[in-house]
Amino acid sequence: MTDQDDSAVSHPSAPRVGVIMGSRNDWETMSAACEMLDRLGVEHERSVVSAHRTPERMFEYARSAASRGLKVIIAGAGGAAHLPGMVASETVLPVIGVPIQSRALQGLDSLLSIVQMPGGIPVATMSIGVAGAKNAGVMAARILATHDDGLRERLEAFVAKQRDDVIASAELP
Amino acid sequence: MTDQDDSAVSHPSAPRVGVIMGSRNDWETMSAACEMLDRLGVEHERSVVSAHRTPERMFEYARSAASRGLKVIIAGAGGAAHLPGMVASETVLPVIGVPIQSRALQGLDSLLSIVQMPGGIPVATMSIGVAGAKNAGVMAARILATHDDGLRERLEAFVAKQRDDVIASAELP
Amino acid sequence: MTDQDDSAVSHPSAPRVGVIMGSRNDWETMSAACEMLDRLGVEHERSVVSAHRTPERMFEYARSAASRGLKVIIAGAGGAAHLPGMVASETVLPVIGVPIQSRALQGLDSLLSIVQMPGGIPVATMSIGVAGAKNAGVMAARILATHDDGLRERLEAFVAKQRDDVIASAELP
Amino acid sequence: MTDQDDSAVSHPSAPRVGVIMGSRNDWETMSAACEMLDRLGVEHERSVVSAHRTPERMFEYARSAASRGLKVIIAGAGGAAHLPGMVASETVLPVIGVPIQSRALQGLDSLLSIVQMPGGIPVATMSIGVAGAKNAGVMAARILATHDDGLRERLEAFVAKQRDDVIASAELP
Amino acid sequence: MTDQDDSAVSHPSAPRVGVIMGSRNDWETMSAACEMLDRLGVEHERSVVSAHRTPERMFEYARSAASRGLKVIIAGAGGAAHLPGMVASETVLPVIGVPIQSRALQGLDSLLSIVQMPGGIPVATMSIGVAGAKNAGVMAARILATHDDGLRERLEAFVAKQRDDVIASAELP
Amino acid sequence: MTDQDDSAVSHPSAPRVGVIMGSRNDWETMSAACEMLDRLGVEHERSVVSAHRTPERMFEYARSAASRGLKVIIAGAGGAAHLPGMVASETVLPVIGVPIQSRALQGLDSLLSIVQMPGGIPVATMSIGVAGAKNAGVMAARILATHDDGLRERLEAFVAKQRDDVIASAELP
Amino acid sequence: MTDQDDSAVSHPSAPRVGVIMGSRNDWETMSAACEMLDRLGVEHERSVVSAHRTPERMFEYARSAASRGLKVIIAGAGGAAHLPGMVASETVLPVIGVPIQSRALQGLDSLLSIVQMPGGIPVATMSIGVAGAKNAGVMAARILATHDDGLRERLEAFVAKQRDDVIASAELP
Amino acid sequence: MTDQDDSAVSHPSAPRVGVIMGSRNDWETMSAACEMLDRLGVEHERSVVSAHRTPERMFEYARSAASRGLKVIIAGAGGAAHLPGMVASETVLPVIGVPIQSRALQGLDSLLSIVQMPGGIPVATMSIGVAGAKNAGVMAARILATHDDGLRERLEAFVAKQRDDVIASAELP
Repeated sequence: MTDQDDSAVSHPSAPRVGVIMGSRNDWETMSAACEMLDRLGVEHERSVVSAHRTPERMFEYARSAASRGLKVIIAGAGGAAHLPGMVASETVLPVIGVPIQSRALQGLDSLLSIVQMPGGIPVATMSIGVAGAKNAGVMAARILATHDDGLRERLEAFVAKQRDDVIASAELP
Repeated sequence: MTDQDDSAVSHPSAPRVGVIMGSRNDWETMSAACEMLDRLGVEHERSVVSAHRTPERMFEYARSAASRGLKVIIAGAGGAAHLPGMVASETVLPVIGVPIQSRALQGLDSLLSIVQMPGGIPVATMSIGVAGAKNAGVMAARILATHDDGLRERLEAFVAKQRDDVIASAELP
Repeated sequence: MTDQDDSAVSHPSAPRVGVIMGSRNDWETMSAACEMLDRLGVEHERSVVSAHRTPERMFEYARSAASRGLKVIIAGAGGAAHLPGMVASETVLPVIGVPIQSRALQGLDSLLSIVQMPGGIPVATMSIGVAGAKNAGVMAARILATHDDGLRERLEAFVAKQRDDVIASAELP
Repeated sequence: MTDQDDSAVSHPSAPRVGVIMGSRNDWETMSAACEMLDRLGVEHERSVVSAHRTPERMFEYARSAASRGLKVIIAGAGGAAHLPGMVASETVLPVIGVPIQSRALQGLDSLLSIVQMPGGIPVATMSIGVAGAKNAGVMAARILATHDDGLRERLEAFVAKQRDDVIASAELP
Repeated sequence: MTDQDDSAVSHPSAPRVGVIMGSRNDWETMSAACEMLDRLGVEHERSVVSAHRTPERMFEYARSAASRGLKVIIAGAGGAAHLPGMVASETVLPVIGVPIQSRALQGLDSLLSIVQMPGGIPVATMSIGVAGAKNAGVMAARILATHDDGLRERLEAFVAKQRDDVIASAELP
Repeated sequence: MTDQDDSAVSHPSAPRVGVIMGSRNDWETMSAACEMLDRLGVEHERSVVSAHRTPERMFEYARSAASRGLKVIIAGAGGAAHLPGMVASETVLPVIGVPIQSRALQGLDSLLSIVQMPGGIPVATMSIGVAGAKNAGVMAARILATHDDGLRERLEAFVAKQRDDVIASAELP
Repeated sequence: MTDQDDSAVSHPSAPRVGVIMGSRNDWETMSAACEMLDRLGVEHERSVVSAHRTPERMFEYARSAASRGLKVIIAGAGGAAHLPGMVASETVLPVIGVPIQSRALQGLDSLLSIVQMPGGIPVATMSIGVAGAKNAGVMAARILATHDDGLRERLEAFVAKQRDDVIASAELP
Repeated sequence: MTDQDDSAVSHPSAPRVGVIMGSRNDWETMSAACEMLDRLGVEHERSVVSAHRTPERMFEYARSAASRGLKVIIAGAGGAAHLPGMVASETVLPVIGVPIQSRALQGLDSLLSIVQMPGGIPVATMSIGVAGAKNAGVMAARILATHDDGLRERLEAFVAKQRDDVIASAELP
């Protein structure tokens, strides 16, 4: 039951996180995930993969993810947001879902479509919109940091920075 | 940026997952997480830790979790469900949140209180109720399996079993 | 732009409608669709097909549906209900979605997950629960009746029967 | 139980789909349905028909639809959106409902008023707003394509085009 | 602009209020309206009239209501509750709508389908369920009492009785 | 049980409808009620009366309304909208409630606060916002028209005008 | 700006908290508030006071509360829950509102009707149902304890007891 | 059980109310609380304190509040708004919570996260947004005024001013 050492097979430049989204319009939101991954020094790849418009591409992406070296998948989608859950059905990698803020129902539909998965197939659901995309990057880093001391230290520094920023701005007029 | 080998310091009997919940009443739901972890062979510990009634205990739990060897924390809570988010504020371990089905609002309050975290502090939110608790166990296993080949194989077998169960029950009267 | 005559290739016993559902538990609801199809004399087949637990089976079902002679697919699912939308992504047959009443959110999650499809991939969404399943059977019959005079007459008789039943029960104590 | 050949009585220029809406303001949304029908080569007619302001006109429209050669009706309405359901009560043609995004409740009222039909009288409900209007056009085409090979091929080309567009835009900065 | 005296043409036994409902199952709720009308001494008639299953009957009912001597119509309906609004479209009598508590969405769908009428066609909407049915009876009486002093006095006595009942039960253990 | 003739005591210039609202800001919405009353030739008065800021004024208004000759009260309010229900508690005149569209919850709070009255004290609730205000004017006229033939004819002309306007705009590009 | 000493005019047996509720049925919920006040040694009175059925009684209660020695008012109500807000309009004492769990909308209507008060007239809103009633008792005690050292100590003991109870039950099977 | 006189230990310039908020962005809303406290002559302090980004700071703030002389704490937060509830867990002072209007769900998430506290730990919840912030200031003053006659008189004057402002603006065009 011991953990394995995969450092030997990991290459500095190989992406450990795949960031996908259902539509190019979602990039406005999902870029926050990539910025956070960059900031925390986590190699990642990014692409548009639509559950509804490119189902084969989605399944191919999900099935090959682990063998291509990905450890975590971040999937953003809006409305009847099926991408995170369907990807989670075709891989045993942890999948993080980001509900995109939709026009009519403001992301409540996206949230429920992502989070209410049936028993057996989990999606790690984040908050709606840009904050959720940013948090998807942090969550991916937290997952990887369970076996990466350098990343854990960068996460701790990030947390300290957040704390210091609040304290620096604590004085109000 | 390489992953480390923590197999040397991991002991078969040391819990890798901590399962906590805000009230003893939540055990009815959260036991499904522990059953899933047992089924997948993931060592874990379990306890009642209330954000509102035992805040010091909660912070002590969160702060010491990593040094005690935990890799993942699962936290279930209902209503104004602050436990998962507050634990996530005191550790950089991945925290999985389970919204307990509440009496009046049926878990919608629990869900929003857990999932709508601000940028920087993510909680991996599961579906409401027992299915969510079960999925929290699966998600913890998926996270650990990124660096544990044996667990990954057990997860794959679990997925295959789910598939076969559906197929076996597919015939309808 | 003329309609074709497919009566020559249609066999009395070949199912024209496929009724699928994400879990055997959904049969309690979805049997109402089959009863309605039986009542209206529409040949159909029925099976459990899970988007999340049997994704290959789902895609195989969707992709082969038209070539197997199906004209309409009815898909029932609950919670993060991805089955109708994913089937609609792999066929150009009309797909009718039935939101199963879920435990925590009473089917609001099922409804939004089914109906809020992005532009280009429609699902004909019915009401939540048993009434929706019954209506899925009627809608499938309405679709087929656009090119089946006998069925159209049976539908008209069904409508007349509904009317007469209301009138017969119109007197109140 | 065989399908009939209605190609003999269908004329290239006769509309097969009727697109109606409760108010002229709804045209901003519903024009997307007509554009999609145009794109897929489906002859259609369009008009304002209000359930509440012109009930006789609505009933006349619904009752005469089949005899005028219509095969499918698309009805868009907002708020207490009664048009699709009432039309469905006066015809056995398949009726597709489009919830217009309302001002106060953003279309949630429109959606529930259209989708929650009682057993026996179905409305094929689309997503809220422009995407739903577009999808109404696609759904009408899917229904007609069950008996029109040319249309089915155009639908398949449309699906392929959607897929190729996503793939062409898949690269992100 | 003066009010007319219709007492000459009103007969003691002629119903002044028509109580209708979409389904016989609604009688469990709507009987509370009739009990209240009885209690306040308001002559009324009652019947099942379905917007969706008996549209002609509904329109005939609405169109003839005023000429048959009705002054107010009470209509109860559930789910996609179109009955009150459609009746209001075919008469200028005041129409009172009662949202029946539905199974899945507990009457929120009924409420929105009844209350969110477009400008020009009002429905006087009551609360969901039995309390709303009871209130429909009171509201009908309030409307009639604007021109019926005897009824106004009975209403005032009813209000006084309610007040006295509360005061009599005000002491708590 | 006969209706009385109050035409003798009614004066052409005396207001028959009182229009009140909780805040001056509500005038933007509620002016639509007054415009409709003007259009239908119904004498009315208008004023700001706040349940929370001027409770005595509110009760005085409600208690004196009938004796001052008012037959109907229209009350608009937003958020925790108590004005219509409290006025209805102090008069047996019919009270029509208009939910003002609130900033955060878009009038859902206003709607529920107005419509969900307990058994015994009804408020005739209209749709949210300007359409509801307009409809409050129409509903007041419908109530008065039960005993005012001239007004009933103006209402019928208004309905006919609405119908003709829709028909005139029915042609779409 | 100094606080005054009102201990001289306070009598051990005089109630400092008034607990009221809109209906006797609410006692099932509101008794939890009184039990908590008893437990914390806070003298209180209790009564049924209905905003809608006994408005005069309500205003009299609110207006005389301070002069009768009450320091805090707890008001429970359900549905269109106007009692807490209307009482708060007639006194400057702090008013605590408890949303009773309603039948159809499960207390969401009660919650919004109580909490969404306009600027200037606050109601201290508690959670829905029994937990909220219990918390109303605690909140009243917290308010009084700002000027009552003995009560503050009892509150601290209560908090410690809650903590110890959780810790005592923390071990799970 | 008598109240104590703390006027001796209170200093004119010492803050009696602490106003905190989870993020500097919340100041736009929460400044309304401080303006109201200023207007009512209540000494207060203000600061940014984040439950998630500065948990130690939050606990230190809550634990030291009473000993520093604070009598009431006002806490504003948005989304998964944990600040008010967590502060209430570490002090027995009354805590007033203000739900900040969030971007996606417009403050419904903030409201439920603040108000739905479990039994034993109350938060006095205000309405969403600026009106709620203003009301938090009024509620703090109402609490303090239970033992401060001068403040009570200023509150009464404020209430009278509100009443007079409404009456002065009561005439409508």
